[in-house]
Amino acid sequence: MAARPDVAARVPVAVLGATGYTGVELLRLLARHPAVDIAYLSSEQYRGKRAADVYPSLAGIVDAELRAPEPAAAADAAEVVFTALPHAAAAPVVADLVRRGRRVIDLSADFRLHDASVYARWYGPHPAADLLADAVYGLPELHRERLRTARLVAAPGCYPTGALLGLVPLARAGLLREPVVIDAKSGTTGAGRGAKVDQLFAEVNENVRPYAMDGHRHAPEIEQELRAAGGRAPFVFVPHLLPVSRGILSTMYVRLPDRTPSLDELFTKAYAREPFIVLRGDGAPPELREVRGTNRCAIGWRWDAASGQAIVVTAIDNLCKGASGQAVQCLNVLLGLPETTGLEAPALVP
Amino acid sequence: MAARPDVAARVPVAVLGATGYTGVELLRLLARHPAVDIAYLSSEQYRGKRAADVYPSLAGIVDAELRAPEPAAAADAAEVVFTALPHAAAAPVVADLVRRGRRVIDLSADFRLHDASVYARWYGPHPAADLLADAVYGLPELHRERLRTARLVAAPGCYPTGALLGLVPLARAGLLREPVVIDAKSGTTGAGRGAKVDQLFAEVNENVRPYAMDGHRHAPEIEQELRAAGGRAPFVFVPHLLPVSRGILSTMYVRLPDRTPSLDELFTKAYAREPFIVLRGDGAPPELREVRGTNRCAIGWRWDAASGQAIVVTAIDNLCKGASGQAVQCLNVLLGLPETTGLEAPALVP
Amino acid sequence: MAARPDVAARVPVAVLGATGYTGVELLRLLARHPAVDIAYLSSEQYRGKRAADVYPSLAGIVDAELRAPEPAAAADAAEVVFTALPHAAAAPVVADLVRRGRRVIDLSADFRLHDASVYARWYGPHPAADLLADAVYGLPELHRERLRTARLVAAPGCYPTGALLGLVPLARAGLLREPVVIDAKSGTTGAGRGAKVDQLFAEVNENVRPYAMDGHRHAPEIEQELRAAGGRAPFVFVPHLLPVSRGILSTMYVRLPDRTPSLDELFTKAYAREPFIVLRGDGAPPELREVRGTNRCAIGWRWDAASGQAIVVTAIDNLCKGASGQAVQCLNVLLGLPETTGLEAPALVP
Amino acid sequence: MAARPDVAARVPVAVLGATGYTGVELLRLLARHPAVDIAYLSSEQYRGKRAADVYPSLAGIVDAELRAPEPAAAADAAEVVFTALPHAAAAPVVADLVRRGRRVIDLSADFRLHDASVYARWYGPHPAADLLADAVYGLPELHRERLRTARLVAAPGCYPTGALLGLVPLARAGLLREPVVIDAKSGTTGAGRGAKVDQLFAEVNENVRPYAMDGHRHAPEIEQELRAAGGRAPFVFVPHLLPVSRGILSTMYVRLPDRTPSLDELFTKAYAREPFIVLRGDGAPPELREVRGTNRCAIGWRWDAASGQAIVVTAIDNLCKGASGQAVQCLNVLLGLPETTGLEAPALVP
Repeated sequence: MAARPDVAARVPVAVLGATGYTGVELLRLLARHPAVDIAYLSSEQYRGKRAADVYPSLAGIVDAELRAPEPAAAADAAEVVFTALPHAAAAPVVADLVRRGRRVIDLSADFRLHDASVYARWYGPHPAADLLADAVYGLPELHRERLRTARLVAAPGCYPTGALLGLVPLARAGLLREPVVIDAKSGTTGAGRGAKVDQLFAEVNENVRPYAMDGHRHAPEIEQELRAAGGRAPFVFVPHLLPVSRGILSTMYVRLPDRTPSLDELFTKAYAREPFIVLRGDGAPPELREVRGTNRCAIGWRWDAASGQAIVVTAIDNLCKGASGQAVQCLNVLLGLPETTGLEAPALVP
Repeated sequence: MAARPDVAARVPVAVLGATGYTGVELLRLLARHPAVDIAYLSSEQYRGKRAADVYPSLAGIVDAELRAPEPAAAADAAEVVFTALPHAAAAPVVADLVRRGRRVIDLSADFRLHDASVYARWYGPHPAADLLADAVYGLPELHRERLRTARLVAAPGCYPTGALLGLVPLARAGLLREPVVIDAKSGTTGAGRGAKVDQLFAEVNENVRPYAMDGHRHAPEIEQELRAAGGRAPFVFVPHLLPVSRGILSTMYVRLPDRTPSLDELFTKAYAREPFIVLRGDGAPPELREVRGTNRCAIGWRWDAASGQAIVVTAIDNLCKGASGQAVQCLNVLLGLPETTGLEAPALVP
Repeated sequence: MAARPDVAARVPVAVLGATGYTGVELLRLLARHPAVDIAYLSSEQYRGKRAADVYPSLAGIVDAELRAPEPAAAADAAEVVFTALPHAAAAPVVADLVRRGRRVIDLSADFRLHDASVYARWYGPHPAADLLADAVYGLPELHRERLRTARLVAAPGCYPTGALLGLVPLARAGLLREPVVIDAKSGTTGAGRGAKVDQLFAEVNENVRPYAMDGHRHAPEIEQELRAAGGRAPFVFVPHLLPVSRGILSTMYVRLPDRTPSLDELFTKAYAREPFIVLRGDGAPPELREVRGTNRCAIGWRWDAASGQAIVVTAIDNLCKGASGQAVQCLNVLLGLPETTGLEAPALVP
Repeated sequence: MAARPDVAARVPVAVLGATGYTGVELLRLLARHPAVDIAYLSSEQYRGKRAADVYPSLAGIVDAELRAPEPAAAADAAEVVFTALPHAAAAPVVADLVRRGRRVIDLSADFRLHDASVYARWYGPHPAADLLADAVYGLPELHRERLRTARLVAAPGCYPTGALLGLVPLARAGLLREPVVIDAKSGTTGAGRGAKVDQLFAEVNENVRPYAMDGHRHAPEIEQELRAAGGRAPFVFVPHLLPVSRGILSTMYVRLPDRTPSLDELFTKAYAREPFIVLRGDGAPPELREVRGTNRCAIGWRWDAASGQAIVVTAIDNLCKGASGQAVQCLNVLLGLPETTGLEAPALVP
């Protein structure tokens, strides 16, 4: 077992929006993180209750009361604040917290896109566009250095995490030149905990369906980062809703130039030192359950000679590496801790 | 409600291999078919029992005893024989039945491929290659005319059915010129009822995984029929195992020439008179549950201008339109009945 | 296959509340019923749309437009009206329809309890108490004779159906004398199609929980009918929510007097001529899937000598025999048709 | 977060039968246990491979090779040995290890029953009956003191753990006097990882069924411990198979004497200091997911005045508190560590 860092004083952290699915996942991870104390929690819907009243699994583990979301109080209580609030609602709160000198890790979409006009197309006018330049896209495998000193981290979307970790090595190698296919399959928690008919058990169970065939708001995020990595090709992105609670499997198809590059070398080189990337290798398909509850991204690949395409498959837990686990990984980078701190537990299999 | 054909005398039919998943699905459909009588059933594993001992759902509905598979006895009892036996085991039985003058609808892979050498690559030496020329590929939407007089019908594989119904209209229009992606997601019954660790509930539940990344034996079947329809492009086919019992969703990506053809027109023209094809239309994604338990194939599509690709999605029930329902549809063609006879029941939703 | 009744003229029927789960199940069954025409549909939420817009599975099968619920228009269009409206909302509509001379089969709880004061305790003041005396409890196995001429049928609740079919034979034999345990496990569709957080896929999946431990509103319904059958014992009823869409399994424990009665004889005698009761026998446990999509109730039992208790297990599909299938069975009784008319399809297995 | 024990030297442990479901659950827990080193692993089926070849979730976490099960080698390598072997196969291996002076925690049924003749009725002649007197039943909540010095621990069955933790407080209070009902619902991993048709996804999904209605081999284990706690009443035990991977929910019904005892007091007193018992309280039903992946047992109760019965509900994870977690808890007792060592992680919710 990995040694735990010897932490003289724990860092007080806050979670705003603690009872949504990414919120409770943060609590699960932070409760066992050796370097932090959960100092402040908020929940609009359940204010006045305790986390364990909403999630009995936290009984005896997270005891703080759920308060109304008050940036001032959160800033008083905590050095680092996680905001797990809805899109657009997050931005003003984040801005307030940054103004008060707190480091913020935002799990909403509000600071992921550098270009406010792109944001506006999907989410409406940006509520705090002046902060965009400060935000660092929180995918440590891509932006580790800038993250170390970031005061505002924009934790990536779940679909972009799965797609980018598979495609960026090809983009950087100049291999993304022809239209790419991203066929993504996601568990239901990606849609959040809102009461929606199409997320009812009886609507999802024994069913699978593609959605957002005319465009998904995670696409510009993928595009921004692929371009930054040197990818010049357009892509089509089709998400599918699966009858599983957690997990995103992204199957990607990339047409490559005549001569096959060695995908083995490419991925090995790209990720040799990454603690959360598991290279499953050639012809070895990753599966959702091997990453469930973990911050890992498992990657498999294969070169299909007949059609001249590389198949790249990534598996992540959408709530963990695709959201809250990645946010904790970013916290570790901010604090100068080993990135795996608090994120070492193996997947729950079976 | 559709009127029932007035049937003077029912046609006696046999099912060999009645207790596998395609076998029991045949029983479910044939038991309610107004033009046939179930005259003979066999099951190697459960011989001597009754179908309802194995599947209590058939109590009071299918009463015939399960016998050892005897082609002679089946030929005596029935005019049309469904063979739902394992690959390679089916061929000699089918040959025997055809020799005895019975019409056979075979659900194995044994007579789907016209070329015995292609068969051999995936299944071993063909046990009855001389019969290949007689077999008609049992996809009525493609080969209706030849089926009317067929003495041997090779019911298509489940994956090929879902892929071909989406791609053949493009192939026929000469639009399959560049490498195609077929990303297919299947329920577990496609793997049959054999006792395998990787099909256990605890291995499949809350999990999704691609498989056969180095090639699947259904690929040559897809290739054969696409070529016959004028498709010249290679394709990559990646199947995924889903935690659902029934259904295949095939998401297909086709790069098209500069000027977008009208996919609406293409599909409307191709399938205007097909009773089992449901055109969901542009941007309307089909879902597994709308076809569950039915012989329908629901098709949706969208033109993705950014990447220059058509997205075509088909949904079928792998046990029904992907196997036993299609076999009954073929029976109806053989017997000159309306193709929907015995196949009219709506999907079980929710 | 069972012969179809020769129907000179079809009976026009209406469904008010056609897009909830019991509504769409009615559509699935009525669409294939040879003696009726669907003449009028209403849906508060989807008025102006067509059923197939909400449930694509009905495309080409149910074409009527969904209208606002208007008793007058329904009465004009139909001879028999199914009301699948929420509790309390149903009663005034039902009263209006009955006043207009229509026969009504109500799937709400409004007319199940004979005693308005008992109703009031669970649902509030009864909106049409004067009609209670006219209502016949729609469990044909118990009240067939009275149903034949009923003008108002109160289709039973799903839990009561599963419990009563297992316990009434014992009640009638005078064997219900000591406290009974009814441990019931239900799929999620019993809770309807409303958008509720606790019915989200991610809340139900990989979970099971008891609920209503302090009393469930179906208990008085069970009590009323058990008493009517001669049962004098109190019972405890604990429902559990399962991660399945359809089905209720009721495991019941009855302490019996010293000398074991023959449960085989008891159930055989009680149900010998019932077309929808499947007696699985001694030690043979019924399972949910064998009744899925059907109007059947499968019953198994065992005498546990050590504890002096009879175990009786029933399995039904909560949407079918537990609601809409039973309503159609009642329709058949009202119309003097064979009770199985339109309800013959075998379960969807697997 | 709880402080970790300061461990000077780690204790080497072995797991025999490391690739079954209880084996891999042990690996998941032991890999993160701060006081042990995994020194030896065996797997009959996968010998020569590594754990991560069978369970990719363990890549980079458990690196030891899987060897053939050799008691001598295991005894050389480890101080404490977990045996997760099939019933009857475990006993001789355990006997050999004990003879070699190793402390053994056995997860099979071989040493749970004190009486060899009772064992024989369910499992055949006992292969090492002389050791029975040495074995301590590994439910720390009941036998903590004797466990501290045990050389052979018989980890309880999953069903008995769920039933006993709910009933023993009543037995000890002399309240188990009349026949008790234990209605248990279990996930599929309780049946192990053997390839069996009735455990296939398509047989379990969208289904629930009782089984072993004529007696289950876990019943004598429940009886033995209830008697030891003063329970004099017979009970009936009916297990049900659920479509979930992990978890047992036990709903128990106990008829109590006229005057209601305070169940609140009873449970509070019994479990006040137990680190793994979560008292949900009166009318508060526990659910499977709140304990998933944890060693907790959540307990809720209610007094049903009408029928004079106490309802007691317990929820455990069958693989964790019902098997491997409990085995690790026993290890902690053996080693004199805080019992929660290595078992602190919150449940994976959602």
